[in-house]
This record gives sequence, structure tokens and C-alpha cells, in this order.
Amino acid sequence: MTRDPKPPVCVLGTGLIGGSLLRAATAAGYPAWAYNRSEDGARAARADGFEVSTDLVGTLRRAADADALIVIAVPMPAVDHLLELIADYAPNCPLTDVVSVKGPVLDAVRRHGLAARYVGGHPMAGTSESGWAATFPELFRDAVWAVGVDEGTHVDPWSRVVRLALDCGSVVVPVLAAEHDRAVARISHLPHVLAEALAVAGAAGGPLALGLAAGSFRDGTRVAGTAPDLVRAICEPNAAALLEVLDDTLTVLTAARDSLRADASLAELVEAGHDGRQDYETAKRWSITGVTPGDHDWLAAFAEAGRGGGVLTELP
Amino acid sequence: MTRDPKPPVCVLGTGLIGGSLLRAATAAGYPAWAYNRSEDGARAARADGFEVSTDLVGTLRRAADADALIVIAVPMPAVDHLLELIADYAPNCPLTDVVSVKGPVLDAVRRHGLAARYVGGHPMAGTSESGWAATFPELFRDAVWAVGVDEGTHVDPWSRVVRLALDCGSVVVPVLAAEHDRAVARISHLPHVLAEALAVAGAAGGPLALGLAAGSFRDGTRVAGTAPDLVRAICEPNAAALLEVLDDTLTVLTAARDSLRADASLAELVEAGHDGRQDYETAKRWSITGVTPGDHDWLAAFAEAGRGGGVLTELP
Repeated sequence: MTRDPKPPVCVLGTGLIGGSLLRAATAAGYPAWAYNRSEDGARAARADGFEVSTDLVGTLRRAADADALIVIAVPMPAVDHLLELIADYAPNCPLTDVVSVKGPVLDAVRRHGLAARYVGGHPMAGTSESGWAATFPELFRDAVWAVGVDEGTHVDPWSRVVRLALDCGSVVVPVLAAEHDRAVARISHLPHVLAEALAVAGAAGGPLALGLAAGSFRDGTRVAGTAPDLVRAICEPNAAALLEVLDDTLTVLTAARDSLRADASLAELVEAGHDGRQDYETAKRWSITGVTPGDHDWLAAFAEAGRGGGVLTELP
Repeated sequence: MTRDPKPPVCVLGTGLIGGSLLRAATAAGYPAWAYNRSEDGARAARADGFEVSTDLVGTLRRAADADALIVIAVPMPAVDHLLELIADYAPNCPLTDVVSVKGPVLDAVRRHGLAARYVGGHPMAGTSESGWAATFPELFRDAVWAVGVDEGTHVDPWSRVVRLALDCGSVVVPVLAAEHDRAVARISHLPHVLAEALAVAGAAGGPLALGLAAGSFRDGTRVAGTAPDLVRAICEPNAAALLEVLDDTLTVLTAARDSLRADASLAELVEAGHDGRQDYETAKRWSITGVTPGDHDWLAAFAEAGRGGGVLTELP
């Protein structure tokens, strides 16, 4: 794409997302290294030829020296501890994250005085596997990568993050943290909750029900195969937005139950659900053009475009 | 497998399941022909080289002459009309069906005095497509095919149905109609209901939410892409069993909502759901042996085996 040298990337956490990012960034020509808390994970990554250390302070000092883009790639409960050390050892590095929720990370970043160099990120990619063994560089290919455009975002770190996402093969959706969290409650966290409930209902039917289960049950419960701690770390920090959509969904399901009981009819639910799935299948991404980072109101313009289904396919 | 000539099969309805069965039976060496209500569907099937007529009476007379196994392959709401004509024109043919619910079909069969030659069937296979264009002979390969063992089932038609299912590449789960319906409420009809509700919730998030949607939403809403009439024809005839499991699921989801609100915790749901998915992934089919059709209590013995996860992989 470009012949500019790629600026360094320092990934904190080499689980499925962080490890895959280390691989993808390296493959795209970025000098990249990582920290991982467990020696087992670090050793596995080193065995595959990557520079991964369990020395967090040393890793951050190296990032500070190199002006690396630091990527926080740990579950939400572990974010605060990392920010504390980043504030101590690499406070001037551009900073992003790949955590599943954006509001709580932004709040934590502000508490630690790191907001000026921070841009939230969330690649919408994953599998039900976890850990270094599950990582692969193509995880982000053709995925959507949410990138923050909250007030106070600076152009330089923003462009660094967008460029990295694009170089990993994703398209970028510019989004406000709060709007991101409400959206992912609908399309990522609610799916987890419903998958768990469906798995519970199926297993309660014993070997006969599980033996008769075919595609609809298999697909509907796939993400219930994700490690419970990881599901909780993804969903629980977004409790407020998830509660809102879960309440709505309980209302919808209760109405369907009542209609089924009274009239043996699921008409309303099924029509609405089919329409919703059609909306999803026919949704068209369009390329955002004409907004230049740093221009007057650029952040609001990007947020508005992302809200309407626009994506960035190249660095503006 | 066997060098015996295959006995003829007459399929009533050439939608996804019936049409695929016409293809599969033909490929397995069965003389097979079909009826389809719409001339468009019949013409499409004929264009592919199959004998498909819109003349129901003529089709049934031919079945009666040839002692063909008649397979009812229409949605539940259309079953009664077919049974009426079968009772008139082919009352002595062995009779089965591939309808998604078994109790209501069995009741209707009994009302029409056709129970002595009837054996319920339900191949657990499908896609979100429908109609002749979606049919393919391998639809049943490695699928599970539920075959009825209700009191009063006779050996001859039962063996005809089991043999056909096996020859189409499926394994057979022997099951009572009522137990089948309670099981599929859990693993087929509830997945439809939850998929519709998830699609509604996602679409309510507009282009941003749908644009951020990835694997969990795609898989969780896949079956909401099925034609609404078909979903209703599958789920609504099983209203009683579906109501029971939907009530249970509302209880589970409400408890999760309350726990999320009170403690920001999804621990109980997520642990239980993960266990349920593990049960599904690790469920082992085992081959039923030592039961001979026609022996004392053979139907009860098969029902007990199916209840415990047993399958037939060859004709006993």
C-alpha cells in the first residue's frame, strides 16, 4: 500500500485477539512485540518466532523509547492495572485497545490521565477459542474494526489506529464509545446471553433432545462454547446497555409466549424477526469520503457517518 | 448395501425436504415419483428429470397399484387434506411423513383410520432455503432421522421407513411422538423463536449495530432468514411443548436479567449454558443392538434406547 516504514506496535496480552494482532501487524510489516502475563503463553508465542515477554515494565519502556502504538488486549477486568503502569512508564505513547466495551475503557483511561493519546478500538472478530494456540493473522481480514471518535480525540493517534486496522485487513467504523456499547449489546452480548439460555434448554432435554439437535441448535449455541470467564468479561462490563436490550427482548419474547398461548400464533414475532434478518442481510456498507481528520467537526462528522453504516476503507 | 430391489416411494410435496427426499431416494435406487401442488414446482422438478405431477389422485392411485411407501412432505396445515385423499385412494400403502411435529400428525392419521400402516418420521435436516430450487440429494447425509415407535406400530411399514432413512445416509432415532415433540421444541422450535427475537433486537440498533454485527449475530439469527410462513408452520403446531420450554427460558432469562441488574453478574447463566453446550458437543451416539422388530416389547425397547441417545445405523 504505502512505502512509509510502519511505526512500531506493542501489544499487551497475547490471547486470541492480541496474539492474532501481533501476528497480523508483523505480517503487515510493523515492527511488533508483546507482553503476556503468563509465561506459558509468552513461551508459546516465542516458539512461533515472536518477541513476547512477561516483563511488563520492560515492555512498556521499550514502547516509550520507540514511540510504539500500545494496544491493550486484555479482558476489561485487567485493564486498570495496565493503565496504571502505562501512566508510569509510557504515558506519551499513542494508546488503543481491543476490549469488547468502550465506555468503561475510556473512563479508566481518563482517570489515569491518558486520554490525549488514546483512541478506543474494537475489532469485531473472534472465535469460540482462546489463547495463543487459537491465534492467526487473518482473524481481522474483512472484519469490521470499530475506532473511537469521542470528543477530545487527537488526529495523530487516531490515524495510527485506523492505519493499523486497515493494514490488518479490516474496514473501520468510526463510533462514539457510548453508541458502540449500546450497539454491541444488541449484536454481540445479547447473542451470548441467548445462546447460553438455548444451550440450557437443549441440555435439559437430555440425550434424546441433544441427539436430535441439528443446524439451528448447533449455530444458535455456538458461542456458548466460549470459556465462561471470557463471556462474563465481555458482557458484564456492558451491564447497563445489555440490561436495556435484554429487557426489550424479554418483552418481545413474553408477547410471543402470550400470543402462542392465546392464539397458537407466532405471527408477529416471526414477521418482525424475518424483517430484521433481511435488514441485516441487505445492509450495505458505504465508504465515507470527504471528511479530513483535524477539520472542523471531523469527529462529529465521522460519528454521524458511522451511525449511518459508513466505513473507512482507506486512511483519510 | 443390499441387492434386493428397492420398493417404490411416492413423495407428496417437493419442497426442500420432500424434493430432496425424491432426489435421495432416486439416487439410492428406489423407483420414486412425486406430487406437488404448484405446477411451477412440479415443472422445475420435471425439468431436472423427475416424475412429478400436480394430479394428486392419479399419483395416489399409482402408489396404491405399486404398494409404494407414501411420504407426506407438506407443512402441517396441509396434512389433513392429503390424509383424506390417501384414505380414499391408497389406504393400504405404508405411510410416513417428514413433518416437523409428530403428535398432531399421528392424531390426524388416527382420525382418518390410517394408523395401522403409518410410521411417523422426521429427518433433522434443513437449510433456511425452501422450494425445489433448494433441494439436493445429500441433505440427509449424516443427519438424524427420527422414526416413530408409538404403540400399534407395525413391523412392515416401520422397516420400510427405517430402510429408506438409512439409504438416504441418515442414522435413525426411534422415538415416541410426544417425546419427539417435546425434544424438538427445545432444539428446533426454541432456536427459531430466539433467532427471531435476536434479529428484532439487532435491527432495532439500526445501521450501526447491523454494521458491527459479526459471527455471533450472524449465526444466532441464521434461521430467522427462513420464510415466515414456514417457521410458523413448523413451530405453531407444537404450541403446547413450545410454550413449556419458552416459559422455562423466560424464567432463565429473567433470572439472568435480575442478576445482571443486582450484581452485574451473568455467572449462573453462563456456567449453565457452557455446561449445556459441552453436553451437546460431547454427546455420543451409540448403536442400538439386540432388539428385533416384532419381538415382545420391541417398540418400548426402541423408545427406551432412543431416549438414551441410541441410534440405528442398519436395519435390525
